[in-house]
Amino acid sequence: MTAELQLEPDGRLRHLLSLDGLPAPVLRQLLDQAELLRPHALGGSALRGRHAGRTCCTLFFEPSTRTRSSFQLAAARLGMDVLNFDVSTSSTKKGETALDTLRTIEAMGVDLFVIRHASDGAVAELAAGARPGTRVINAGDGRSNHPTQGLLDMLTLRQHKGADFSALKVLVAGDVLHSRVARSDLQALRTLGCGEIRVCGPANLLPGPEVLRGCEVFHDMDAAVEGVDAAMMLRLQRERMEQGLVPSLEGYYRDFGLTPARLARAAPGAIVMHPGPMNRGVEIDGDVADGPRSVILEQVANGLPVRMAAIDLLLGATAPL
Amino acid sequence: MTAELQLEPDGRLRHLLSLDGLPAPVLRQLLDQAELLRPHALGGSALRGRHAGRTCCTLFFEPSTRTRSSFQLAAARLGMDVLNFDVSTSSTKKGETALDTLRTIEAMGVDLFVIRHASDGAVAELAAGARPGTRVINAGDGRSNHPTQGLLDMLTLRQHKGADFSALKVLVAGDVLHSRVARSDLQALRTLGCGEIRVCGPANLLPGPEVLRGCEVFHDMDAAVEGVDAAMMLRLQRERMEQGLVPSLEGYYRDFGLTPARLARAAPGAIVMHPGPMNRGVEIDGDVADGPRSVILEQVANGLPVRMAAIDLLLGATAPL
Amino acid sequence: MTAELQLEPDGRLRHLLSLDGLPAPVLRQLLDQAELLRPHALGGSALRGRHAGRTCCTLFFEPSTRTRSSFQLAAARLGMDVLNFDVSTSSTKKGETALDTLRTIEAMGVDLFVIRHASDGAVAELAAGARPGTRVINAGDGRSNHPTQGLLDMLTLRQHKGADFSALKVLVAGDVLHSRVARSDLQALRTLGCGEIRVCGPANLLPGPEVLRGCEVFHDMDAAVEGVDAAMMLRLQRERMEQGLVPSLEGYYRDFGLTPARLARAAPGAIVMHPGPMNRGVEIDGDVADGPRSVILEQVANGLPVRMAAIDLLLGATAPL
Repeated sequence: MTAELQLEPDGRLRHLLSLDGLPAPVLRQLLDQAELLRPHALGGSALRGRHAGRTCCTLFFEPSTRTRSSFQLAAARLGMDVLNFDVSTSSTKKGETALDTLRTIEAMGVDLFVIRHASDGAVAELAAGARPGTRVINAGDGRSNHPTQGLLDMLTLRQHKGADFSALKVLVAGDVLHSRVARSDLQALRTLGCGEIRVCGPANLLPGPEVLRGCEVFHDMDAAVEGVDAAMMLRLQRERMEQGLVPSLEGYYRDFGLTPARLARAAPGAIVMHPGPMNRGVEIDGDVADGPRSVILEQVANGLPVRMAAIDLLLGATAPL
Repeated sequence: MTAELQLEPDGRLRHLLSLDGLPAPVLRQLLDQAELLRPHALGGSALRGRHAGRTCCTLFFEPSTRTRSSFQLAAARLGMDVLNFDVSTSSTKKGETALDTLRTIEAMGVDLFVIRHASDGAVAELAAGARPGTRVINAGDGRSNHPTQGLLDMLTLRQHKGADFSALKVLVAGDVLHSRVARSDLQALRTLGCGEIRVCGPANLLPGPEVLRGCEVFHDMDAAVEGVDAAMMLRLQRERMEQGLVPSLEGYYRDFGLTPARLARAAPGAIVMHPGPMNRGVEIDGDVADGPRSVILEQVANGLPVRMAAIDLLLGATAPL
Repeated sequence: MTAELQLEPDGRLRHLLSLDGLPAPVLRQLLDQAELLRPHALGGSALRGRHAGRTCCTLFFEPSTRTRSSFQLAAARLGMDVLNFDVSTSSTKKGETALDTLRTIEAMGVDLFVIRHASDGAVAELAAGARPGTRVINAGDGRSNHPTQGLLDMLTLRQHKGADFSALKVLVAGDVLHSRVARSDLQALRTLGCGEIRVCGPANLLPGPEVLRGCEVFHDMDAAVEGVDAAMMLRLQRERMEQGLVPSLEGYYRDFGLTPARLARAAPGAIVMHPGPMNRGVEIDGDVADGPRSVILEQVANGLPVRMAAIDLLLGATAPL
């Protein structure tokens, strides 16, 4: 459903809801546009006329200041007005449906929604209910999708390892089960033809075979990291411990944390990635996070041009850059 | 008091506090200006220079994301800087008076305040305490006033039924007692010479005769809706049930909800209005809300030009449109 | 440490962290720049190109709507994009360190941080961890520093009493122990060579001799106010009573409140100052707060040019005004 919803019949992008089923040419177009936008992504006034007079609403049914901020700056640097609509302090609490909330704000003259929701599929449902001219970007739904995070991870990987992913060995490690970031990353790695995709985590924190399609599965972190070109570490939510899914943070760090010793097993020039926010000393050692292999802050920086590219293509970029 | 406060001695609008006592020519001027502003209300950059360099502060002592957002976009589309000041996270909790809060923000160079407050009359009191040059728009005080909602309802009604209200039958239905929207609507309908104003609700949710001046009162919804040109439905706050004012939501829907069957009793071409947020299946049936008679999203859209018109006139619109 | 951190080797300002150790010429430069910016500080579009395309982030680990709003407007009036990042609703709660939060936002292309933190020294630590090109303004840390409040107080004093402070008698009165405002004021008064600095408060609400260096200490408010040119009153936090540090608000008002009778003991033309938010009838009488000697709202208004001056100098003001 989502795949047809996010593409026009002629193959152009209408919404950005999921990397699942997104054709490789569209995915590459987003990355290429992001590269073109990079010189303007972290500041400057050059593109303030590009989408001036249009309005972006960040509609968050689940709080996330970091992701919201990244979208807010991306939209503002393209000249858009930005309306932050935080539903935890709004009328949805008053019994209004999520779709009525969206339609109400849409009627105020909003061109683009950036939506986060705790339920799987909720963002696609909202996109399906929006007016034909309205555009939607999924900023994270349930455990399912976080497409702009997946794109910024691919952009970062491409900048360091080149556009041909066929010879790459990439590891995604940690709590894959609960991670929408992992799902979007695995989908993008498959689409871009990554040579070897490894997944490592405790057995009870790995998802079923459909999610892990095409991946080599490890439960031993030392073996998993051997010879990889990139290690994408996932955040361990502290509630996993309260839920009894992880015996202790110390034990998790010992078995699955990316330590300097483990990183030494990776390929020469391997890069270390993390979507943030990090738990230092849990899934990643502080020295690794701050070390020369870490590209974690580059990922954050790449979030800007990637989000600008998505906005630009969805709104029908008229002017060349 | 409010009437003199909101008009200059020469009859021009100084503040917009209430539709009570607002002369018909001023009310019509606001609607006419809104019509002129409509082409620019939902986006575009044409009016960004109109009030550039001036600052609007939304000062909300009671949370409301929808109304605040509408004002925020209206002010931004006229070029203003917007400061959202949410008092639930501010220093009023620290023992500061509301007037000291207003004066403090005013001293930062704020030209216009949009104020919501839970107490009747609180916004007018703040307007009375502001500097002579400062303008105030009431975004809702207690049960008393919500003038821009009343104006946008009149604009919507006028667009569908024409400027002559003398032959119109209009129904305001539901919890009139607790509704500032209903009070502003009734005041505006009287000022504009509406031919027949009907009010319908459970006896314990209707206000005293002063509020219902000039209205025909019904307790039977089937009879009330008979032949009306517009049905303005009011939101039923869920706390009315906890307060024992309504036996059950199902019973309320059965007796007072606007169902398709009831709507069939209205005049041909009758329109259905609701200020939002809606309780589907309580005061209004979902099919009615989404049906061809519903102008609910047009009301939301009209909120933008109406609020822009109020801002424009209060700030002394210098340039013709 | 802070002193070296906030000045470049050539003496120019890199961060604004504390008035402690800030050389008099730099302090005077900030005040002079603020005077130049004043005509543009409360509105207008003249300076919108000055820092256009640059981004200011208000990063508040402790809530403060007033101070944040003042910085937000100051940055916007210089043309900056402003990102408000409230950590109480953000990922620091998720176990992320404050420095990781700062570095993440920094990577999104933020040029200037305005930071408030409840812990003494936390803002300087964050400044020390920021990238070389990033600028930091301390918007209040613990009990230690509130440099822009100190500067705006000095600007207000200078406007009323002239640039030569050597003949001035200034009183700082109230809960000096817990006040970062008092510390910044005392530091600035010493730097600018104030003739006589008096401090008055209950013995258990006065700090140690290091903070009170160069001050004359009073516990009798009548004596303290005698002949002063300015009385700077401090806010009494209501929790001081719960902590048992103050027997009652009535008793505090009787012994230390600035009443009309006490104010009559001050020098002719003496001014009354307060950083806000005020507790009327506790540390200050309502009639004094609203009276002709009060410059409290001028202080608020001066916050804008002072903050614009700090931003302007930190970002390397290129164009003359």
